[in-house]
Amino acid sequence: MLKSDFQAWEGFEGTKWKDEVNVRDFIQKNYTPYDGNEDFLADSSEATNLLWEELKGLQKEERARGGVLDMETEIVSSLTAYGPGYINEEMKDLEAVVGLQTDKPLKRAFMPYGGIRMAEEACRTYGYEPSEKLHEIFTKYHKTHNDAVFSAYTPEMKLARRNKILTGLPDTYGRGRIVGDYRRIPLYGIDFLIEEKKKDMANHSPLSMTDDVIRIREEIAEQIKALEEMKKMAAIYGFDISRPAENGKEAAQWLYFGYLAAIKTQNGAAMSVGRISTFLDIYFQRDLENGTFTEYEIQEIVDHLTMKFRMVKFARIPSYNQLFSGDPVWATLDVAGMGIDGRHMVTKSDFRFLHTLENMGPSPEPNLTVLYSSRLPEAFKNYSAKISIDTSSVQYENDDEMRIEWGDDYSVCCCVSATQTGKEMQFFGARANLAKCLLYAINGGIDEKTKTQVGPAYRPITSDILDYDEVMDKYDVMMDWLAGLYVNILNLIQYFHDKYYYEAAEMALIDTDVRRTFATGIAGFSHVVDSLSAIKYATVHVIRDEEGLAVDYEIEGDFPRYGNDDDRADDIAVWLLKTFMNKIRKHHTYRNSEPTTSILTITSNVVYGKATGALPDGRPAGEPLSPGANPAYGAEQNGLLASLNSVAKLPYEYALDGISNTQTINPTALGHTLEEQAENLVSTLDGYFDQGAHHLNVNVFGLEKLYDAMEHPEKEEYANFTIRVSGYAVKFIDLTREQQMDVISRTCHGAL
Amino acid sequence: MLKSDFQAWEGFEGTKWKDEVNVRDFIQKNYTPYDGNEDFLADSSEATNLLWEELKGLQKEERARGGVLDMETEIVSSLTAYGPGYINEEMKDLEAVVGLQTDKPLKRAFMPYGGIRMAEEACRTYGYEPSEKLHEIFTKYHKTHNDAVFSAYTPEMKLARRNKILTGLPDTYGRGRIVGDYRRIPLYGIDFLIEEKKKDMANHSPLSMTDDVIRIREEIAEQIKALEEMKKMAAIYGFDISRPAENGKEAAQWLYFGYLAAIKTQNGAAMSVGRISTFLDIYFQRDLENGTFTEYEIQEIVDHLTMKFRMVKFARIPSYNQLFSGDPVWATLDVAGMGIDGRHMVTKSDFRFLHTLENMGPSPEPNLTVLYSSRLPEAFKNYSAKISIDTSSVQYENDDEMRIEWGDDYSVCCCVSATQTGKEMQFFGARANLAKCLLYAINGGIDEKTKTQVGPAYRPITSDILDYDEVMDKYDVMMDWLAGLYVNILNLIQYFHDKYYYEAAEMALIDTDVRRTFATGIAGFSHVVDSLSAIKYATVHVIRDEEGLAVDYEIEGDFPRYGNDDDRADDIAVWLLKTFMNKIRKHHTYRNSEPTTSILTITSNVVYGKATGALPDGRPAGEPLSPGANPAYGAEQNGLLASLNSVAKLPYEYALDGISNTQTINPTALGHTLEEQAENLVSTLDGYFDQGAHHLNVNVFGLEKLYDAMEHPEKEEYANFTIRVSGYAVKFIDLTREQQMDVISRTCHGAL
Repeated sequence: MLKSDFQAWEGFEGTKWKDEVNVRDFIQKNYTPYDGNEDFLADSSEATNLLWEELKGLQKEERARGGVLDMETEIVSSLTAYGPGYINEEMKDLEAVVGLQTDKPLKRAFMPYGGIRMAEEACRTYGYEPSEKLHEIFTKYHKTHNDAVFSAYTPEMKLARRNKILTGLPDTYGRGRIVGDYRRIPLYGIDFLIEEKKKDMANHSPLSMTDDVIRIREEIAEQIKALEEMKKMAAIYGFDISRPAENGKEAAQWLYFGYLAAIKTQNGAAMSVGRISTFLDIYFQRDLENGTFTEYEIQEIVDHLTMKFRMVKFARIPSYNQLFSGDPVWATLDVAGMGIDGRHMVTKSDFRFLHTLENMGPSPEPNLTVLYSSRLPEAFKNYSAKISIDTSSVQYENDDEMRIEWGDDYSVCCCVSATQTGKEMQFFGARANLAKCLLYAINGGIDEKTKTQVGPAYRPITSDILDYDEVMDKYDVMMDWLAGLYVNILNLIQYFHDKYYYEAAEMALIDTDVRRTFATGIAGFSHVVDSLSAIKYATVHVIRDEEGLAVDYEIEGDFPRYGNDDDRADDIAVWLLKTFMNKIRKHHTYRNSEPTTSILTITSNVVYGKATGALPDGRPAGEPLSPGANPAYGAEQNGLLASLNSVAKLPYEYALDGISNTQTINPTALGHTLEEQAENLVSTLDGYFDQGAHHLNVNVFGLEKLYDAMEHPEKEEYANFTIRVSGYAVKFIDLTREQQMDVISRTCHGAL
Repeated sequence: MLKSDFQAWEGFEGTKWKDEVNVRDFIQKNYTPYDGNEDFLADSSEATNLLWEELKGLQKEERARGGVLDMETEIVSSLTAYGPGYINEEMKDLEAVVGLQTDKPLKRAFMPYGGIRMAEEACRTYGYEPSEKLHEIFTKYHKTHNDAVFSAYTPEMKLARRNKILTGLPDTYGRGRIVGDYRRIPLYGIDFLIEEKKKDMANHSPLSMTDDVIRIREEIAEQIKALEEMKKMAAIYGFDISRPAENGKEAAQWLYFGYLAAIKTQNGAAMSVGRISTFLDIYFQRDLENGTFTEYEIQEIVDHLTMKFRMVKFARIPSYNQLFSGDPVWATLDVAGMGIDGRHMVTKSDFRFLHTLENMGPSPEPNLTVLYSSRLPEAFKNYSAKISIDTSSVQYENDDEMRIEWGDDYSVCCCVSATQTGKEMQFFGARANLAKCLLYAINGGIDEKTKTQVGPAYRPITSDILDYDEVMDKYDVMMDWLAGLYVNILNLIQYFHDKYYYEAAEMALIDTDVRRTFATGIAGFSHVVDSLSAIKYATVHVIRDEEGLAVDYEIEGDFPRYGNDDDRADDIAVWLLKTFMNKIRKHHTYRNSEPTTSILTITSNVVYGKATGALPDGRPAGEPLSPGANPAYGAEQNGLLASLNSVAKLPYEYALDGISNTQTINPTALGHTLEEQAENLVSTLDGYFDQGAHHLNVNVFGLEKLYDAMEHPEKEEYANFTIRVSGYAVKFIDLTREQQMDVISRTCHGAL
């Protein structure tokens, strides 16, 4: 079969991608840019409506049962652990794309490899009793990632973790963020991919068998095994994916099987889908030309595929839900973007995916992401702005910035982080609380909440008024300590994740010679900036407890704050990012991966804030930190555009894992008609991104709607009311009241 | 408890060993050299006789059942998998030292971590049906060493392995050869050892968490877990080993629990006991002085401990039994040796252990090894010579050579390989067939048996008469290839053994900063030497098959042969050893271990020979290779001493893993009375070892005894008739007829 022109490839141009795996080349040689508007789009089909109603019913029942509809306790999830499953067995012929994680819709699988204790705790949290047999297997015979990590942590690591200066570490959940190139399955079929991996195996036999070579050889063997298993999994549903897909429906189905393989074997926080719209469009375009499918049928395929992405569920524990609330999975799916050759990459299918938010209403998943450029066709920009305004279910990332770093075939692997599709994987590493680090600098390494010596016992600041130079000197060395410890913790976590919870199914769809990034992250960003600004430009008095520990601050005088387009504050922001990133870069990172950082907190800003004392910027102890790279609540005094300008100054090259910015705009601020609003949103996005900003989450609604939804969650209109939070979207009613209040207290811009 | 003077240490001298683990220091400060003779020894006790009779009955039954008395199929062996077990439940109070591998004597445990397929094959071989549940666990959830190794082998590796140019590789059985310092348990008690390992954990947290650091941290955590389990295991038998042993009986029992932990968790080919006699003697000496035990009681403890070492069994597969026949375990136990301070280390207990061969008759296990020096006390040398003559159950190794390399507290970890007790571990790596490599050099990498291209396709030799220089040139580059491939295979095997079958219980009793050696080995040694000598000094005609492959050789004229003290041949032997070792040294070895080599084949000389074609020294195709460093069968024409002189020329520094030499002497050649025979054997050993030779296996019997035993195995006198083969001892009647014939065809020296 190899290298021969498959029948399935008839009509496709190009040769390079036929010779070896190269999906980008296939796309570039074959896609049809679309400059028109949304008028061609088809409504939801009868089948779509029936299935979606069914699913909405299940979702309602799930919520009524406290968040979980059903759970597995006896079977360990694997590619072939279950027979076929459907949304509704009786309606199974209606499903254009089939395949569930378990045997029943929304039923959560049992996934112990990351940690048997967590898998069991998840069961018990929702009233299920885990299997004794599996307990024995995963405690007596097979070690899990979590066990290994905790057996090897140093006391210092445990202390830093317990005191939450390093937080949200993927040691009690899967690291996720690896995006298999699921498009490879439809384009090549599994057999071709196996042959290619076998060639890689042959090529990885250098003269010296070092540990690194042995490790990669074992990994390739595991990948080949996973590919074989994927064929069996598809066969359970009656499909032969050993061969390439022959039309758009098969392409969607084959691709989904790849993704299904990932979510059956891994429960990472973020399990992204990747960049699939332009790819699928090539098949749909051929189907339209051949008369294989009508637009109506194609939209149905896209709707059903999307419906599957809306159904992804994992069993989670309470501490996880605190970090990442609203049951997200980051099934991030990217549309649009520009090609390196200057052509835009918008196709009809990019419209079709956005259109799912109309056909089936708003939804937090898949996490729809527009790879934005002001050079995208106006009709597309306009359409996506309208969808944003209608549904608040879309986020925007700056393709012009990302394309420089990652080319034109990257995927967003979580909220804001890009990876080159099929060529890269990321070692996800949560974040360091730099606000708490500032307090450690002031208190000589003693935690302001727990009164424990956590950081090194450097000399604390003893003066009553904080001196900027003294604080900066002490912050510098405390950050040195934190960066080193942080990298070491992550090295350990990633080592054991590879050892005990390797992502064979995802890595099987990624090049063997994979580029690896090592993603760190920053929490408390704006508070550090504002605190340092306060210390520099105002007078900050220290309030101490009886033991002399600085526990609060009184600010005398005004000071510039980040979020107002004021360089005095914004320069500190740039300094902070660059300084932290450079400190991270000083250290050895696991598998010689490339270190990056992000300014992103997701919803964990609430728990992080709880663990953080009062800050010199006036934020009281225990209050939520502002999320991601957002200015502090109440800091933005000069309107949306000034706020955006401040964030846009942060250099993306120093935060290649992403800079998350979430803004809420009152519809009236954008205009009086939908057309006017869309036009203003587009020009806002153009202006923001042309300055080099990285990301924007756009919410368009007024606070009154949030209050109403909080008080009346039972109203039908709020069932799928979706809001964008830091880097992803949630159903507002799925948030805890505390988190709802946090969202409400954020700035809602009433004027641009 | 820590660092305090335990009550149990009363009367013991020294301080260094009390502060941190240092068994050698304890021994040196406290042992009592014994220069007397064997007259003080006590006969076997009533209990010993009863238990030994019982055990002999079980051994007989075992043989009657085809070699296996009983097997476990449902329980995975672990430290706490079973309740207490005794030789005979009704006689359990007679046992001075208790503890079995399973719940019943001679019942073999189920040990799947090395490879579930082998564990199951072992069961089926002896008519047992393995557990389906365990099959599922070790195929679906937990990978085994064997699976991992084979998934990562290159095709070249598999080919070399299949064609037996690299043979006996520990990829289908545990690598073994790791000797825990079992003496640490009696001296310190487990709690002290745990505290020390916790300190090591704290010390292994350098600034950068590299893979190496993370790996060792996980290993220490596993070791601590194993130590905790050992306490539980001992508690099952009613003992509290958290504290030090208080007398010699406890010391023997505590020490045995350490060894028992090893053999319950690992089934390596060699599971040695180590150097324990001088250590235990310190306790016995104190007991004698305190009146705690009489000599009679002490001998009983030694007898019972030894009986336990005679009972060690593992479930093996047929291919393993071919390599290592006679069901050996290499429970090697060392006696004697000299101290670095010039004192000899012979104690009464060194006599006592040899005396077990009188009290309970000859036995292949424990593999009793005298660490020899001509400076050992005459009475001891004389006694051990007598035991050798009587039982053929003792081997000798040159302590004067080994002490230079390994100090005065090393243990023999298999047949002939030394490791520093408690400070070192070995990566065992079987051997390369250098005789076959010579044939590959002649045939351009094509295997003479399978006609497959296995080695690199270098230009073959096409002349009819072999030219020495041409052969040497081609042999040199073919050995380069083989050495590289060999090291790579071993790197891979050791990597996966550490990953999937780590020896936590043994390593828990070894220093964390362990010295690691990387043991390679040579098979076919004498045949290469003689072949090269034939090519150089005689005329060797090549006989080719129809395809031009050299398949046989005709030798015209005489040539000097290795084993006759003729430098012309012996110089080639030295060249061969040095050349191979230097080629091994060129390569990266796993965990930066120190490469060594051995000239040792064990009984695998028969299977290796079967796979090796005719050689230019006149050895026909398929005949057994001569074992170890032994001269070829029939080559020795000038008597034993000339043969020994040849072997003694091999430089030990180039074969630090040992040089095995096995010789059979007709009793009449040594003299007419036992006294005369012993005297002559001692002077032979003195002469041999003073020349720097490394090892000698001494058999003293005539061929007629072997013939009779082969024909009449049922005779009572042959039940435990033990002979020394390459590096260990077996019961002659446990060998296959083919192997018996091999033993018979070796030279039996009728004259010195």
